[in-house]
Amino acid sequence: MPKPISRTVFFVSDSTGLTAEALGHSLMGQFEQVEFKQIRIPFLDDMEKARDAVARINAQGEKDGMRSIVFSTLVNQEISDVVHAADAYSLSFFENFLVPLEKELGLQSSHTIGRSRDSTDSSDYKKRIEAINYTLAHDDGITDRDLAEADVILVAVSRCGKTPTSLYLAMQFGLKVANFPLIPEDFDRGYLPSSLERYRSKLFGLTIQPERLNQIREERRAASKYASLANCRYEIIEAENMMLREGIRWLDSSTKSIEEISTTILQELNLR
Amino acid sequence: MPKPISRTVFFVSDSTGLTAEALGHSLMGQFEQVEFKQIRIPFLDDMEKARDAVARINAQGEKDGMRSIVFSTLVNQEISDVVHAADAYSLSFFENFLVPLEKELGLQSSHTIGRSRDSTDSSDYKKRIEAINYTLAHDDGITDRDLAEADVILVAVSRCGKTPTSLYLAMQFGLKVANFPLIPEDFDRGYLPSSLERYRSKLFGLTIQPERLNQIREERRAASKYASLANCRYEIIEAENMMLREGIRWLDSSTKSIEEISTTILQELNLR
Repeated sequence: MPKPISRTVFFVSDSTGLTAEALGHSLMGQFEQVEFKQIRIPFLDDMEKARDAVARINAQGEKDGMRSIVFSTLVNQEISDVVHAADAYSLSFFENFLVPLEKELGLQSSHTIGRSRDSTDSSDYKKRIEAINYTLAHDDGITDRDLAEADVILVAVSRCGKTPTSLYLAMQFGLKVANFPLIPEDFDRGYLPSSLERYRSKLFGLTIQPERLNQIREERRAASKYASLANCRYEIIEAENMMLREGIRWLDSSTKSIEEISTTILQELNLR
Repeated sequence: MPKPISRTVFFVSDSTGLTAEALGHSLMGQFEQVEFKQIRIPFLDDMEKARDAVARINAQGEKDGMRSIVFSTLVNQEISDVVHAADAYSLSFFENFLVPLEKELGLQSSHTIGRSRDSTDSSDYKKRIEAINYTLAHDDGITDRDLAEADVILVAVSRCGKTPTSLYLAMQFGLKVANFPLIPEDFDRGYLPSSLERYRSKLFGLTIQPERLNQIREERRAASKYASLANCRYEIIEAENMMLREGIRWLDSSTKSIEEISTTILQELNLR
């Protein structure tokens, strides 16, 4: 069913625009009856681009018969002034918060575009790239080498969301994550793979509702024993029992996004 | 060198807090002389947690001898009122922007916490997870199956940032990305791998400064021919010539973050 109201939204930034977009999305999420058509204008860092953007925003408003909404994170005042003179409804995230924050800190902000000219030249950035490489090399129990370096070791039966969660933790927070599947051999033996024993403080488990797991596995291998509800039930009960015995914290990923799972893991393991 | 000024910052949210953090980071980036100690309080969704948070924020202020700064994205008014009564300097994202936006739209916002109770139950979310799976299965030229499904096909010589960029595009934007290394065999033959020929409109190239590539490759395989500056120069010249001949757009990733590379690719290929 099409939504009754439609508005065009521009995300305007002198950098990637990802912050403007994150902020815009959380505001738009509060108006479920509105269909937002989204247009991204990143890297708007000179006056010519500013004037082009204004022309585009105004043209869209005329086309829609309704002014557009502009979410902006422009740092440069001159550029910001030009863009916000467009015939649109503008919410400028920096203008609203930067001046009060300057006052609170008793400092002038640098008003610079981007944090540094070379975005890759920070230790945080290098850490994130290393974390992604580590995490890819330690996906799905590929290896138990260098586990001492891991920040988090995820364990779960197959298809609970270990891989996307691991990659999110690496990409967003720069954490090195290894993940290991819990498999029937582990349940028969009755304890954790021995290589994980001494990293107990880094272990975190995922579990899932059997019905949900059954559905996900059916999409991969329809009508297999692996995907059957009975087998999903068996694996999950065994996995939860094992985590309980071993004192591993876990969460149920059935209705949680990778962002929610990741944030919960950070909190539970007291990371950063 | 330690920074001269230090302040504690809280990110407070009834959801993951990632939006509050994105906003806070981009504002903090404007005050390079300040060392910000960051504390995340996510999933703050009832009054008891609100009171706990206030106690924590106040205790931190006493410890620091200076009130903390609170960036919040609390939707519930009652909870928000409690948290913002803490002895801190609070910037409330929703309070500043939601009311003006309600006026512009002529609508009441839903004031609901999170977008829906089951975060995984949206088509956008499913698309992102599928995109991550596709992208992992099409990393580094593993396979040329199902390329018709790809939204983007990245090509570059080894170690230009293809893999992290591909994963970022998948995770952040839900795009299916395949990536292929350009290797000496391709240069000898003088044209693109034949499986890529018919997907020219999806192709995007990365290149890099030879000195930077040399440095990155030395970290992986020190003193190898593969890592030598002469070989890096050769591969990059050949790759750029090939992309030029084949009409493939490309960018230099030397000083660009995966966020910047990804946003540029979206723009250049006119995606979303």
